Amino acid sequence: MRLFLFITSMTTQQLTNQILAKRTFLCIGLDPDPAKFPDHLRSLEDPVFEFNKAIIDATHDLAAAYKPNTAFYEALGLSGWRSLEKTIDYLNANHPDIFTIADAKRGDIGNTSTMYAKAFFEQLQFDSMTVAPYMGSDSVEPFLAFRDKTTILLALTSNPGAFDFQTGQIEDSELYLEVIRKSMAWKGSENLMYVVGATKAEYFTRIRAVAPNQFLLVPGVGAQGGSLGEVCRFGLNAHVGLLINSSRGIIYASGDADFADAARREALKIQSEMSAILDAAGL
Amino acid sequence: MRLFLFITSMTTQQLTNQILAKRTFLCIGLDPDPAKFPDHLRSLEDPVFEFNKAIIDATHDLAAAYKPNTAFYEALGLSGWRSLEKTIDYLNANHPDIFTIADAKRGDIGNTSTMYAKAFFEQLQFDSMTVAPYMGSDSVEPFLAFRDKTTILLALTSNPGAFDFQTGQIEDSELYLEVIRKSMAWKGSENLMYVVGATKAEYFTRIRAVAPNQFLLVPGVGAQGGSLGEVCRFGLNAHVGLLINSSRGIIYASGDADFADAARREALKIQSEMSAILDAAGL
Repeated sequence: MRLFLFITSMTTQQLTNQILAKRTFLCIGLDPDPAKFPDHLRSLEDPVFEFNKAIIDATHDLAAAYKPNTAFYEALGLSGWRSLEKTIDYLNANHPDIFTIADAKRGDIGNTSTMYAKAFFEQLQFDSMTVAPYMGSDSVEPFLAFRDKTTILLALTSNPGAFDFQTGQIEDSELYLEVIRKSMAWKGSENLMYVVGATKAEYFTRIRAVAPNQFLLVPGVGAQGGSLGEVCRFGLNAHVGLLINSSRGIIYASGDADFADAARREALKIQSEMSAILDAAGL
Repeated sequence: MRLFLFITSMTTQQLTNQILAKRTFLCIGLDPDPAKFPDHLRSLEDPVFEFNKAIIDATHDLAAAYKPNTAFYEALGLSGWRSLEKTIDYLNANHPDIFTIADAKRGDIGNTSTMYAKAFFEQLQFDSMTVAPYMGSDSVEPFLAFRDKTTILLALTSNPGAFDFQTGQIEDSELYLEVIRKSMAWKGSENLMYVVGATKAEYFTRIRAVAPNQFLLVPGVGAQGGSLGEVCRFGLNAHVGLLINSSRGIIYASGDADFADAARREALKIQSEMSAILDAAGL
């Protein structure tokens, strides 16, 4: 049982169990952009939900997590929120074992953060959500107070702007490392994961020195240029500790009627690589 | 016409014009919490909208801006988003001169930030929205690309957690000052304002040294303990340059049927102080 020594939240332990059983630590980003949908979806009542449902139906055995990005739903107004609600309800009803992430990047003063936590943990019943660290401890702890939920804090993101502030020298360290170090002492920190961009694999060594046991959500593999092998070489730990996200590379692998089949093919390629990586690591 | 020399965006100029005409730079935060509503609202079809409408009807001549905080609407699910939509539509239809702020604190990689900008600038037609700086230039510039809209970037917030990272020493400066300095060079920066918490009036001197002409949105007066006089002493500039927000102190001044009258009384107190401050400054 040594594997699970450091895992304190049931959610994280269930996630590791699922990863080891399904041989995948793939997270699929559900970022629906109706402009990229195949024509036959457009005449349906809720094209966004039908798109997501088709992707989920075609890939759920290959993915450990799904991550709807809230921006893509909000941009569609009220109907977008309805599609988001239907998507999370569909996932919870049909695949309760799969880890769900609201990629919302929220964060505000205490009473407001509690409202955001309620929105995504209670109203929509996501297992986890992404949160921005800029406003500090009392903006994040209201999320951590939901003990059976996971809060995924931005540390080092995958975009060029990550070098504007995140890698700045601060207090004899770098800001993204300070975010990790300080947040690990916050109340409820056993419910924390971190976002760490895959475009900077060399940073994983520094992060693992500070946070050897935490799960990392890794965007930026694929469309944004990161390498799966490199990330795993430096980021994998004894209980896997990685969720690798791919969004556009999977869900828009084809813009035609075969989009779900094409998504499955792309997901299968990644899952096969992941399975081999887990085998090689003896996991 | 010297007053307006530094004002490049029409939105900001209109805001200054409105402030000088109405003798108020008060922003009222619309953070509706149904648990705090008077009983008679509960039986209505949309209590959240009716609450906001009553506050707006009672205070619109005393306020330069309204700022719904999106968390309070999201926490109510789909019906909350409908209430938010009705609130901004009501403001735009009845008070087109009033400046509207979506307090959303969003920010993500480029294509995602564009979706958030569409959600609040196009779908909901807010004049402005708050954005978090952690992810850097390419996460903020998509908002700035909307040239007739204002992006309000978090610099120094009013909560205790502001001291976790924002005031950290970085690149021979402090993070919040670095955020202001760097962002002023980003594409579309003429559309920027900054959030600066009122609980730290002494910081306004440092901020005005870097950003003498920018508008600052100042939360934290009232419930959070900031002083209006102190903020204005260090923060006021030749075209006012301040929007001072109060939420709970106004909208929950009474929890009874007279809540709108009580809100007006509180707003009038602040507006009278503001009018005197403008007079004293020769504005």
